[in-house]
Amino acid sequence: MVEPAPALAAGSVGPVETQSLELPAPVPLDCGRDLYPVTIAYETYGELSPARDNVILVCHALSGDAHAAGTSKAPAESARDGFGATDRDGASGRGLGWWDGMIGPGKAFDTDRFFVVSTNLLGGCRGTTGPSSIDPATGAPYGPDFPVITVADMVRTERAFLDALGIERLAAVAGGSLGGMQALEWAVRYPDQVDAVVAIASTHALHPQGLAWNAIAREAIRRDPAWQGGRYYGTGRGPDAGLGIARMVGHITYLSAPALDQKFARRLQYADDIQYTIDEPEFEVENYLRHQANSFVKRFDANTYLYTSRALTYFDLARQHGSLERALAGVAARTLLIAFSSDWLYPPRASREIEQALRSLGKDVELEVIDAPYGHDCFLLEEARQTPIIRRFLERTS
Amino acid sequence: MVEPAPALAAGSVGPVETQSLELPAPVPLDCGRDLYPVTIAYETYGELSPARDNVILVCHALSGDAHAAGTSKAPAESARDGFGATDRDGASGRGLGWWDGMIGPGKAFDTDRFFVVSTNLLGGCRGTTGPSSIDPATGAPYGPDFPVITVADMVRTERAFLDALGIERLAAVAGGSLGGMQALEWAVRYPDQVDAVVAIASTHALHPQGLAWNAIAREAIRRDPAWQGGRYYGTGRGPDAGLGIARMVGHITYLSAPALDQKFARRLQYADDIQYTIDEPEFEVENYLRHQANSFVKRFDANTYLYTSRALTYFDLARQHGSLERALAGVAARTLLIAFSSDWLYPPRASREIEQALRSLGKDVELEVIDAPYGHDCFLLEEARQTPIIRRFLERTS
Repeated sequence: MVEPAPALAAGSVGPVETQSLELPAPVPLDCGRDLYPVTIAYETYGELSPARDNVILVCHALSGDAHAAGTSKAPAESARDGFGATDRDGASGRGLGWWDGMIGPGKAFDTDRFFVVSTNLLGGCRGTTGPSSIDPATGAPYGPDFPVITVADMVRTERAFLDALGIERLAAVAGGSLGGMQALEWAVRYPDQVDAVVAIASTHALHPQGLAWNAIAREAIRRDPAWQGGRYYGTGRGPDAGLGIARMVGHITYLSAPALDQKFARRLQYADDIQYTIDEPEFEVENYLRHQANSFVKRFDANTYLYTSRALTYFDLARQHGSLERALAGVAARTLLIAFSSDWLYPPRASREIEQALRSLGKDVELEVIDAPYGHDCFLLEEARQTPIIRRFLERTS
Repeated sequence: MVEPAPALAAGSVGPVETQSLELPAPVPLDCGRDLYPVTIAYETYGELSPARDNVILVCHALSGDAHAAGTSKAPAESARDGFGATDRDGASGRGLGWWDGMIGPGKAFDTDRFFVVSTNLLGGCRGTTGPSSIDPATGAPYGPDFPVITVADMVRTERAFLDALGIERLAAVAGGSLGGMQALEWAVRYPDQVDAVVAIASTHALHPQGLAWNAIAREAIRRDPAWQGGRYYGTGRGPDAGLGIARMVGHITYLSAPALDQKFARRLQYADDIQYTIDEPEFEVENYLRHQANSFVKRFDANTYLYTSRALTYFDLARQHGSLERALAGVAARTLLIAFSSDWLYPPRASREIEQALRSLGKDVELEVIDAPYGHDCFLLEEARQTPIIRRFLERTS
């Protein structure tokens, strides 16, 4: 008996498999080291045009991977375990890509027209070279010997990867959060190779409270004795406790307080009253956090979390270039910035600062602040409202 | 050579020593257990009037203790290591009480007029019976066998303690945060024994995001293997790593994002550029967090943190009484509520809900929302602006 195909949303790119490519040359890093070999995990959706002028690079956020759209052949491995997504449509169970609502035929990033490329970022743990990869110098996983990387290093690696695919120019580069940082870095670093930037729920420099949350998440991992100075691979134990705490902190910062009010209120976990326990969850939100932590540690590497979190705290266009205006002076791409009113981790004011800097430089820039209640997670959830904005913006490209 | 006396702020109550009292009878707890023996650590400031009608009970917050005012004889043991306080006047080094700016001659809680009593709360680790105390059943510290307590249990214990001192009525009960919860519980539980309530930066029920932050802090402690299921006393190691993370989470929730911007911005810790390290603090705010964690674990017990955090999440006047209005229906005390515009952990809207409920019941209530930028910590910092409000309110008592 033939099993029926899983039900797909209209406009799905369908089943996809993550591919792999080894870069031909070392990647030079900001820290001064060269990294080699570097393998890139990636997926593509749509068809590359003969002129190779329809490429959109999609960049993922801290906990994402290359599986951005369609259905994975490894459903349990879906990156789409975000807050709203999981509950809304049980996407995890179908192995949907983390931005499946945005990438596909007729969607925001329209695969009837564009060739969309998605890679796992440098330092990742989902196929691209990172701390859990083998260090050729030792034959063992890098662990803490992996070089400390930056967003610019991620973008250099993406550039080298596209070179290897024979792709010179990008019709657009797009991403949310850390993905948006990469998109902005592309426009700054390779101004003559990017036509358009879509940076969503992102910033030119994380604010101090954001630095603090990231520091707490990293401390939670590093203080877990099972982290073992980062050399936990092959020891039979890893810093699951600390990584779980990091994930909990992340989750709450990705949501807004009103979203938590709406979703959980103060509902109790058991029966109609408290159970007088300090060991077990008493409130639904406590149980939710524990569940999120436990599922995250099954699919994510703690060292990748450390390195990626570090990179996104470093990102600071003004520090790197003297001022935000100097950083953006060479930008040739048209820029679309989208921010969300309730996002307190990447608040709209950062996008406004980028908009104002670009505008003062006479650049082509558009900022849309979407009034939505779900916090930073909106960039994964508010697909319906982002889609017409992004489609309209990208239509101007052609 | 005689050392000069330490410089004291005008209106200090001067040197004080924490005292101790054992309650004569078991304290009945919400969980159904009786607790005995119970020792209370306390301090008093000012003189008890012959009519015993000038008593103000001051209740502390999660990490406080009985040392609320004056200079301790054990300077390093000061509870006043809060964010702003430490930096503003180096109070810690002088062993100042955690609310020294509010308690003393001519201050908000005027010791020329009132007899101010401050106790370490039930479950505490600074002299009052808590998880680190000896369990008479075993002769060893309670650890996780300590009963799970509630804010009502804390208040019952305070009532029993005042009985032992021969004090029947309170001219006022006051506190911030968890201390404000105790003040509200006093008014609900002992309506004929309280003339006035001052509840600052507090709530009738912590909102879901606050539940989440507390859950994360507790998980960080519990997931630390050195916690050992709570039985770490005498083992030579304790959950310092987890308690440090809990403190870091607490600290950031006590402050506002603009306060962090102003205090730290994105200033780097070393030299003029990043050092490419995942081990060491790169930003000043990272170093600050590490410092706060390390100093906290020297003076605070992790199990007390667990139990106290649990109690403050349980507190929910509406759940306990059917509705907020039903909870407050019997209140006879005049109520002063103070909230701070930038406090996102105990936001003004909770105080407004209490105000509205009391007003709808025809009760005497006053709400002052102070526009101040420092977040929840304002209740410890904005002494100058709280003082005239509280003095005016308390004058009406006489």
